[in-house]
Amino acid sequence: MSEKSAFQDNYPENVAHCYGCGRLNGHGHQIKTHWDGEESVTRYRPEPFHTAVPGYVYGGLIASLIDCHSTGTAAAAMYRAEGREMDTQPAFRFVTGSLHVDYLKPTPIAGPLEIRGRVKAIQGRKVIVESWVLAEGVVTARGEVTAVQMPESFFAAALPKPGAPTA
Amino acid sequence: MSEKSAFQDNYPENVAHCYGCGRLNGHGHQIKTHWDGEESVTRYRPEPFHTAVPGYVYGGLIASLIDCHSTGTAAAAMYRAEGREMDTQPAFRFVTGSLHVDYLKPTPIAGPLEIRGRVKAIQGRKVIVESWVLAEGVVTARGEVTAVQMPESFFAAALPKPGAPTA
Repeated sequence: MSEKSAFQDNYPENVAHCYGCGRLNGHGHQIKTHWDGEESVTRYRPEPFHTAVPGYVYGGLIASLIDCHSTGTAAAAMYRAEGREMDTQPAFRFVTGSLHVDYLKPTPIAGPLEIRGRVKAIQGRKVIVESWVLAEGVVTARGEVTAVQMPESFFAAALPKPGAPTA
Repeated sequence: MSEKSAFQDNYPENVAHCYGCGRLNGHGHQIKTHWDGEESVTRYRPEPFHTAVPGYVYGGLIASLIDCHSTGTAAAAMYRAEGREMDTQPAFRFVTGSLHVDYLKPTPIAGPLEIRGRVKAIQGRKVIVESWVLAEGVVTARGEVTAVQMPESFFAAALPKPGAPTA
């Protein structure tokens, strides 16, 4: 893995279609997350229509960003715990077991958002990640995600069937 | 209010731009929620690109649907507690204080989703709503939202300033 590539750039091709973070989903947010020391960081600029009330970011978008930022952080943390690069096998990919968000104050929509995260615990196939959202340097929301390692069957289900068209 | 109009059809015009539920947000989900006895119901058909992994619904969309379904239910519940129709003044409109979602199993993307909700408690300006998501009649996610009555300043902030262009 290049040091500069994002966590999501390394997701296996058959599980890279997530609306929040899949690089192969042309309609989605395609967030990109990197390590910054012990914290993970995503930067995202909301679209003008991602509003709650005019001037402020939609809470569902904030939940979505926390969700995908955290599952990405979980995957990266598992590779790091094994001392492996993210482009090595077997691949780690996580789904969300639970998501909690506390909305602390309205999030201004005018500028870019920063989502930062930290691994709280690795428990077998689960990784607990706490994340927070900053707008103009002010924390506006805090989240916690229990990310669960994707079952092998998901990878298999997502793979094209032999002989099936791949597009 | 017509018995058939959705909760969201009654949101005041200056706070009807939410990406999840605002009827004035042309890019958004525009969910519509109604009472079904003591439960509230929203039906929503995900777009094909609202995927987590191929075949399944993106968790961020599920969180968004639970969020807006629950804040709508909170507003409707407050009107009902006061014995008022939703098109009467003063208007009740809620924001999300906290959101929790447990993802119980993958949610198939093929068909329409049903989101159902129930008021757990009304505590002053807060309403706690529990909601669940069904796909093909099976519960795939459960959520709980603490909805908080929107401060008056939000209505004021969302109103065009006197003399300012309105478009």
